Amino acid sequence: MLIVQKYGGTSVADLERIASIAKRIIRYREEDNDLVIVVSAMAGETDRLLNLAHSICKFPDERELDVLVSTGEQVVSALLAITLKNMLCDAMSLLGHQARIITDSSHTKARISRIEQDLIVSALNKGKVVVVPGFQGVDEKGNITTLGRGGSDTSAVALAAALNADVCEIYTDVDGVYTADPNICEKARRLDRISFEEMLEMASLGAKVLQIRSVEFAKRYNVPILVKSSFTDGEGTLVCKEVADMERMEVTGVTYNKNESKITVSKVPDKPGIASHIFTALSDAQIVVDVIVQNVSRENFTDITFTVANADGKKAYKLMEEVAGKVGAEKVAIDENIAKVSIVGLGMRSHAGVASKMFSVLAKEGINIEAITTSEIKISCVVEKKYGELAVRALHTAFGLDTGAVEEEK
Amino acid sequence: MLIVQKYGGTSVADLERIASIAKRIIRYREEDNDLVIVVSAMAGETDRLLNLAHSICKFPDERELDVLVSTGEQVVSALLAITLKNMLCDAMSLLGHQARIITDSSHTKARISRIEQDLIVSALNKGKVVVVPGFQGVDEKGNITTLGRGGSDTSAVALAAALNADVCEIYTDVDGVYTADPNICEKARRLDRISFEEMLEMASLGAKVLQIRSVEFAKRYNVPILVKSSFTDGEGTLVCKEVADMERMEVTGVTYNKNESKITVSKVPDKPGIASHIFTALSDAQIVVDVIVQNVSRENFTDITFTVANADGKKAYKLMEEVAGKVGAEKVAIDENIAKVSIVGLGMRSHAGVASKMFSVLAKEGINIEAITTSEIKISCVVEKKYGELAVRALHTAFGLDTGAVEEEK
Repeated sequence: MLIVQKYGGTSVADLERIASIAKRIIRYREEDNDLVIVVSAMAGETDRLLNLAHSICKFPDERELDVLVSTGEQVVSALLAITLKNMLCDAMSLLGHQARIITDSSHTKARISRIEQDLIVSALNKGKVVVVPGFQGVDEKGNITTLGRGGSDTSAVALAAALNADVCEIYTDVDGVYTADPNICEKARRLDRISFEEMLEMASLGAKVLQIRSVEFAKRYNVPILVKSSFTDGEGTLVCKEVADMERMEVTGVTYNKNESKITVSKVPDKPGIASHIFTALSDAQIVVDVIVQNVSRENFTDITFTVANADGKKAYKLMEEVAGKVGAEKVAIDENIAKVSIVGLGMRSHAGVASKMFSVLAKEGINIEAITTSEIKISCVVEKKYGELAVRALHTAFGLDTGAVEEEK
Repeated sequence: MLIVQKYGGTSVADLERIASIAKRIIRYREEDNDLVIVVSAMAGETDRLLNLAHSICKFPDERELDVLVSTGEQVVSALLAITLKNMLCDAMSLLGHQARIITDSSHTKARISRIEQDLIVSALNKGKVVVVPGFQGVDEKGNITTLGRGGSDTSAVALAAALNADVCEIYTDVDGVYTADPNICEKARRLDRISFEEMLEMASLGAKVLQIRSVEFAKRYNVPILVKSSFTDGEGTLVCKEVADMERMEVTGVTYNKNESKITVSKVPDKPGIASHIFTALSDAQIVVDVIVQNVSRENFTDITFTVANADGKKAYKLMEEVAGKVGAEKVAIDENIAKVSIVGLGMRSHAGVASKMFSVLAKEGINIEAITTSEIKISCVVEKKYGELAVRALHTAFGLDTGAVEEEK
């Protein structure tokens, strides 16, 4: 088998842990697997480097920021390769520019466009374990790029896709994907399997297990992802194509995100092109918009509400003030005091009344819903931040996730 | 003017110092100079990384070691570029593989073979300050290499040569080249100028101001090097082609190296090819030999003595035991308790009796000489380590260096 394994920051936090994953890698190698190992920076290192840059100035040059932070993964790649070779396992590191992980030029949030895998394949053919730093790539001109937070997952899946690997194993500090965040819902349970589609919604909604882009990649190229703990020997959760038995329950998981800000542009003249104006401005500024809600028009005016990551909140707010001036909107408001609670499940497609059940559960707890958005397999409600965790627990119970019912019910 | 400036580890030890060199760079830029800046890692960082690797194993894989330690300079390059851009000075970093600093494949002590300067030149033409991490390069296959300790000086001079720069300024924590190490000889004085040849002998003999290879490069391509302090605004020392007034004194400086081990192979059969046998073995093991002394033959046997860096001592000793067995030598001894004291000066060529004066100065202090080696412009004596500093001071006084006589005497 050709296996891509990715180890996160806590799995490589010190030399002892690096030695312990090296032993795991050698076990896999002894079973005659070909291995490409993708590593993150040591836990805390990326933040340390970012803090250095941000103590120089508020908006450090992004090209140079990538040069800076990509060193974190480079260090771990070298240390792991040294450890493996010392354990008599032939290995070599290939950095982003050597492994030819080609991205676009959007520094700090680049996207992989292709991987020229010749060098990796030739190293694998020589029996080497190939260690690749996650998170980093190189653009067409040879500039170092990084893929954004959690980008190492994306590196791993992209490599698995490019190399046509049998599976992409993501080792992290949790032992799989849960029905809800166990830190706020003690009855949350590990899922054995989850479909790409559900995982996509889970990831984008704040389950921090996998970066969303990595799941998109995995879905597009049908790369099964096995999420496992690097500290225990559990089964993990397999993220893969939808299979029939997945549809038993209405809801697979409940997620929660308190790191978004809600921005409302009020009394926007309701003319064609206005929404495009607003969201083009945001996308030009590379701001990713999550929930978008536009209410029906009243007296030829409408309100447009959207959420963005807290980090982009102030920037988006400023942009909207400019845009509001241009398009003749009345005012712009920002609210950081929100949480987004969502239920996700392929089962929604075949069960009626899931939305109304969600709203009544929240109402019963006295939680006001500030905005609603839905997709085929998820429903999200924006609520006041202080109610977020309560909402998760109430929904987890109401949709039968507490009891292990996923396995038993039909 | 096109100026290459190199800043050492203490000059970039923290963000405050990086800001202070950024201000200096901007002053030069405002005077309309084109600038290429070569930086070292923050003081202590290279050791920190090496310690990490060496706590994994005694002999970490050298290819991976280069991947590891080259991050130190990469971090500083990015931080300096960020700082410059924040101060509204256009700048960009170009790493070894981007600046196309091509080396051979001798990891941890690679040699620069050429620099493909197109990218640097095009950045300079756009008005950018180019920041290049010192110490690192890339081999023909794209593997990251490093140039060995102090390699950043070599990077700077090589860049100055390739770009045909007007001067290469090396900023360090001392304000120039001294007649002796001021830490052990308080009467040591700064030299305004020194020739490449003298500097070569000074550097190779332990004056830690410039790495020897950088001076070789500078000599070969006639790149004047200005050694200056990054903390004060002194004149520094210009290392350049020999000029007439340099020859006033017999001796320009006294140097001292206590980081060598002396190895003696005794009772070697005095046959052709034996010395070649010994030194080929050392060079195959990439061990650099400094002093070599072979005494005259007695009864068809001879003794061969040489010195190597302490770091290579044990390895060289083991090699010599093997070689001794093969060639029928009697025994091998290693002595780490030595210091090498040298006097250097172009003036020796035209002054008689310099050697005998040196020997009598040492004799007067009761210092026994264990080995002697000379070149056209230097004389070195190996003495017992404890006498090293005393020897330096005695020679400094005896050759008239205490009094500022260099300037006054004829």
